[in-house]
Amino acid sequence: MPNSFGTLFRITTWGESHGAAVGVVIDGCPPRLPLSEGDIQGDLDRRKPGQSDITSPRKEKDKVEILSGVFEGRTTGAPVSMLVRNSDARPGAYDEMREKFRPSHADFTYQAKYGIRDHRGGGRSSARETVGRVAAGAVARKILALAGPVEIRAYVTRIHDIGIPPGHGEPFPSVAEVDMTPVRCPDPATAAAMIRRIEEVRAKGDSVGGVIRCRVRGLPAGLGEPVFDRLEADLAKAMLSLPATKGFEIGSGFAGTLLKGSEHNDPYVPKEGRIGTATNRSGGIQGGISNGEEVFFNVAFKPTATIMIAQATVDNEGRPAELTGRGRHDPCVLPRAVPIVEAMTALVLVDHWMRNSAQNKAFKF
Amino acid sequence: MPNSFGTLFRITTWGESHGAAVGVVIDGCPPRLPLSEGDIQGDLDRRKPGQSDITSPRKEKDKVEILSGVFEGRTTGAPVSMLVRNSDARPGAYDEMREKFRPSHADFTYQAKYGIRDHRGGGRSSARETVGRVAAGAVARKILALAGPVEIRAYVTRIHDIGIPPGHGEPFPSVAEVDMTPVRCPDPATAAAMIRRIEEVRAKGDSVGGVIRCRVRGLPAGLGEPVFDRLEADLAKAMLSLPATKGFEIGSGFAGTLLKGSEHNDPYVPKEGRIGTATNRSGGIQGGISNGEEVFFNVAFKPTATIMIAQATVDNEGRPAELTGRGRHDPCVLPRAVPIVEAMTALVLVDHWMRNSAQNKAFKF
Amino acid sequence: MPNSFGTLFRITTWGESHGAAVGVVIDGCPPRLPLSEGDIQGDLDRRKPGQSDITSPRKEKDKVEILSGVFEGRTTGAPVSMLVRNSDARPGAYDEMREKFRPSHADFTYQAKYGIRDHRGGGRSSARETVGRVAAGAVARKILALAGPVEIRAYVTRIHDIGIPPGHGEPFPSVAEVDMTPVRCPDPATAAAMIRRIEEVRAKGDSVGGVIRCRVRGLPAGLGEPVFDRLEADLAKAMLSLPATKGFEIGSGFAGTLLKGSEHNDPYVPKEGRIGTATNRSGGIQGGISNGEEVFFNVAFKPTATIMIAQATVDNEGRPAELTGRGRHDPCVLPRAVPIVEAMTALVLVDHWMRNSAQNKAFKF
Amino acid sequence: MPNSFGTLFRITTWGESHGAAVGVVIDGCPPRLPLSEGDIQGDLDRRKPGQSDITSPRKEKDKVEILSGVFEGRTTGAPVSMLVRNSDARPGAYDEMREKFRPSHADFTYQAKYGIRDHRGGGRSSARETVGRVAAGAVARKILALAGPVEIRAYVTRIHDIGIPPGHGEPFPSVAEVDMTPVRCPDPATAAAMIRRIEEVRAKGDSVGGVIRCRVRGLPAGLGEPVFDRLEADLAKAMLSLPATKGFEIGSGFAGTLLKGSEHNDPYVPKEGRIGTATNRSGGIQGGISNGEEVFFNVAFKPTATIMIAQATVDNEGRPAELTGRGRHDPCVLPRAVPIVEAMTALVLVDHWMRNSAQNKAFKF
Repeated sequence: MPNSFGTLFRITTWGESHGAAVGVVIDGCPPRLPLSEGDIQGDLDRRKPGQSDITSPRKEKDKVEILSGVFEGRTTGAPVSMLVRNSDARPGAYDEMREKFRPSHADFTYQAKYGIRDHRGGGRSSARETVGRVAAGAVARKILALAGPVEIRAYVTRIHDIGIPPGHGEPFPSVAEVDMTPVRCPDPATAAAMIRRIEEVRAKGDSVGGVIRCRVRGLPAGLGEPVFDRLEADLAKAMLSLPATKGFEIGSGFAGTLLKGSEHNDPYVPKEGRIGTATNRSGGIQGGISNGEEVFFNVAFKPTATIMIAQATVDNEGRPAELTGRGRHDPCVLPRAVPIVEAMTALVLVDHWMRNSAQNKAFKF
Repeated sequence: MPNSFGTLFRITTWGESHGAAVGVVIDGCPPRLPLSEGDIQGDLDRRKPGQSDITSPRKEKDKVEILSGVFEGRTTGAPVSMLVRNSDARPGAYDEMREKFRPSHADFTYQAKYGIRDHRGGGRSSARETVGRVAAGAVARKILALAGPVEIRAYVTRIHDIGIPPGHGEPFPSVAEVDMTPVRCPDPATAAAMIRRIEEVRAKGDSVGGVIRCRVRGLPAGLGEPVFDRLEADLAKAMLSLPATKGFEIGSGFAGTLLKGSEHNDPYVPKEGRIGTATNRSGGIQGGISNGEEVFFNVAFKPTATIMIAQATVDNEGRPAELTGRGRHDPCVLPRAVPIVEAMTALVLVDHWMRNSAQNKAFKF
Repeated sequence: MPNSFGTLFRITTWGESHGAAVGVVIDGCPPRLPLSEGDIQGDLDRRKPGQSDITSPRKEKDKVEILSGVFEGRTTGAPVSMLVRNSDARPGAYDEMREKFRPSHADFTYQAKYGIRDHRGGGRSSARETVGRVAAGAVARKILALAGPVEIRAYVTRIHDIGIPPGHGEPFPSVAEVDMTPVRCPDPATAAAMIRRIEEVRAKGDSVGGVIRCRVRGLPAGLGEPVFDRLEADLAKAMLSLPATKGFEIGSGFAGTLLKGSEHNDPYVPKEGRIGTATNRSGGIQGGISNGEEVFFNVAFKPTATIMIAQATVDNEGRPAELTGRGRHDPCVLPRAVPIVEAMTALVLVDHWMRNSAQNKAFKF
Repeated sequence: MPNSFGTLFRITTWGESHGAAVGVVIDGCPPRLPLSEGDIQGDLDRRKPGQSDITSPRKEKDKVEILSGVFEGRTTGAPVSMLVRNSDARPGAYDEMREKFRPSHADFTYQAKYGIRDHRGGGRSSARETVGRVAAGAVARKILALAGPVEIRAYVTRIHDIGIPPGHGEPFPSVAEVDMTPVRCPDPATAAAMIRRIEEVRAKGDSVGGVIRCRVRGLPAGLGEPVFDRLEADLAKAMLSLPATKGFEIGSGFAGTLLKGSEHNDPYVPKEGRIGTATNRSGGIQGGISNGEEVFFNVAFKPTATIMIAQATVDNEGRPAELTGRGRHDPCVLPRAVPIVEAMTALVLVDHWMRNSAQNKAFKF
């Protein structure tokens, strides 16, 4: 169903930008996992607005409440329902959007599809919906941390045309290194330039996009369910299900198409007592199944659609109109999207881990 | 489940490269659709090996048999089961693969996951599995042709580093224009250069990849099911579920991240009696829902993993070994992937069309 | 997933007997449906404890809060999240259950399955979980009332050995007739005897079960999705998913097996401008699809497992122990189960209505 | 989807009574299971027509062909596709059914739903569709036999009004004891009376129904996924998805409603080193989860709708008409339904076994 994601570790998110609350239900959470609000709040804090000068000034505490599925500090196998109240909703700021369609937003398409729309801050199409994803993703990350440990690290590699040099071969950064600057690029010089660029476009009421890289290490071989639920296929869906995303590439990606097979193939080699590959253009996945190497992929985010510059559009009746962005928005969504990308990745991985277990551990032949 | 795709128009494919047959079951095919083998064979013929000098010489007639779900020339609402017998299987050609893992193939990961593998031609991981997808896709395409008409056209825009110039702004080509050359690039000069490149690398036992573009016109506004089953998310999953794909981008894609919001946004304009957009960097989808403009996206395919050059690898026990490609393979998969991309696109669109109908046409409020 | 029900109109319930709250998310609710808390509260009031002398004295206001999916009095197509806070939880009353397994309750099986259990009032296995079902069912009932109108009426036909005489051929009762007595049997004399029986067994600390009949009129022909999702199959699953149910029969049911084919078959006849049947042993469903006649079925509920009489059992370590029921319980669950049976029926019907629409209304051939 | 059953061990059946073939695809079959056609043929032979004088004389060899998913005698984790060709189809025998609706068959409802019907032998609504279920069920039974061993035994307990005495407390019969007579009732005296009754009604062109009991022993505690996918709920759905079924009851069933709680509860007792119950009115399931005791349930089958006696009906235009049964049919479906009930039971159990494994074995906390 449209607001559920996952097969065995399945989340259902709900809530609108300016409604009473946003939330998520996890169905299929394994029992006996130690879990409290403290495990979740940290990821929500990385996602919440108002963190820095380069993000939306909306003030939300985003305090999560676990309503079910946990008993005496451990999950019980029952659904885990989590809720975050909206506190700084200002629906009045959106009155003009009741009549006019914001360019490159979902106002028009929601109206066309449903015949009705909650125009306040985009309603369901707002990125505020991702609060539920991040809360559930925090549970998934805890599971992976205990299981592997599997580490998932996303960070910004490019803002507009400012990026980590290609072939940079950057090391796997720590969370602290990623969070050292508000733009969440672990390369300090690049980060400084990115921040300047964001401040420049914001000063003009404009916006920028960029690229987030996500890397996973510690993943065992065997995750992924061909032929349709390939691991990279589910990751691609997860990423393209996020607001503002326009592209996904795994391993060598689009650039890999410029290589010949003899240059692109990853030779197998003995590696620390297991079978590994000498190079990793496959991005840790072959035939839709993880091979034990690092999984990595890039996600393209478009420039924020809301800009503080007058734009041509039409009103509800299709008559030409002009609209200037209002409300509180990020001039660049990428810094806050980093924990969201990590959350979706964690959700995919836990789900595939459970699916693999079901098919391979239920019976011994 | 791993071998099923779609929610309401749901296909399940089965079969291995060198097994008895490959096939597909469509569950949820609307009743009363005129359908015969003739509707399907054309798409299978575009996919089959041996079409030209630049594809695999394997000889398969790929004659499809409809086994159920059709009565007196129309679908009945019951499952449509279709089967294609494998006739030119040569499993003996793969004996060496029983012992050694082919680099950047799925041999190792299938073994790691399932503890067993059908090594003959890749077994289930072979692109031969896509026969079922194309057969089902042909049914979906017929539905769309009758419904819209909705036209889906994929074609090759780049092979290795030879591509249609960026910003080419190419017109929507006809099937005849796409199929004019065996490489399925509708630009004749570019196609000629592409063919030469493929012949060059094949002569050296090597392989190349590239990019396929897919375009859809005639699609109504309203298809797509946020927040997770966004239209582009399901298209991304569909494409990344194909063998050899490494990337997906919708609309402006990765290049769009180099624009500012003021450059990237698509202004709404009155258009032929409906609301349209003046530009189309959104790729026909906003907020996960089609907006009535052309939908278009690019898919990256890596160079074919099988090459006729000696490569380093390991054997089943992890000992270093050398392997030279055998069997019959395409030096470049893209020409034959064109109908497969179209098939997957059609499957996504019919499924979303039905989902949209369920939510919006079942009841009148 | 285990806590979700339905394919297109899909609900996910969450919450435990003595947790913070119980609730439900509806994913796939059609847009533009007029909806407010007032539409839901009535059904919750029919389900809540403390309604009469023959039900549990637990005091719960069961006030529902709609948290999402409704804008300016109409559904938007986004998920409808509803929450009911638990106010009269008295977990201390269950301390003994932490150590001992209550006979014919789910304590032991939850412990065996999950390795952990929320022992307070049965935790997730408590019938309190059905609050979410009834809230979602109220939405489904409103849809059906507007669509058909389709009327769903459940009532108690037997308590212990006191029942409406077989072959009673009772008319379709109104809600007022059903609710005239607290036992929800529309036959006043039978109801009076039932109430006396419940009071007798309660006085002895014992409990009784019985049978609920559910009838649906106004349903069009065509609902049901063979071969597995037959309408009666999904109704059976819905009913057997309720706590305390032991049996389901549709139409002639078990008694129908005593007839010969010549006695059992329902002849087709012209009927009010449509094709109907002269008799209705089929219970309004043939081949898994509704035929336009009244749909009716019976559901068996066992006697309440909690009794105020000392019983033999074992403790967590398997040692023999004795246990006497505590907490607040119904000596007979059937009166309060009536709205729950109606809710589940409504959920099945709306879901099948949407599925039928998807397959038959999406395209015209 | 309507023609798929199961969550992780998922089958999709296809095929019509008088089409080219019937078949099934299993998606999610665990890898490395030893499997050949020989494992499946035995169950198909128990289901096939023409076994004895009291079943349909249709001649079908029902030889199964495994088309995929098995390599060198073991499953690979890929879909297992199985096909049975129809050989004794006589569609001409059904010409009258093209114009008239057979009473209590699915002709009318299929026409009403789909606007088209394959009238030949009931098309998709024919019990011939269960060939695929039995083939897949044989795979599931083999898995259970290796895993537990878990034994599933169904048999006929009543035909018309002739049944094993209530409270018979019959022992768990062997397959040989069940198959000793063609009616598949393990009590020889009762079986003889049943056969006479079937012969009597058949001589008059009439038909009878009855009750099948199914029992499962060796099942571990812990199978079942509350709150909706309770084990008994999925068994109920499985049984009511079979042609001709009208009722399902688990454990004490409808008769259990005549007991008081103090009589009905199953006391826990130490039992062979585990926790068991002294009685088993629960039918081996509590709170939707197996408790390690024998699981047993009853299924009601109506008398065969096809009778060789003239019946009133209407034609396609709703005009009164008369119809006399033709084609080859069973005067009583129960003997051949025994292996079908076992197959569906096995499918439910393997699926739940895998689901339980996914939630409980994937991670260790």
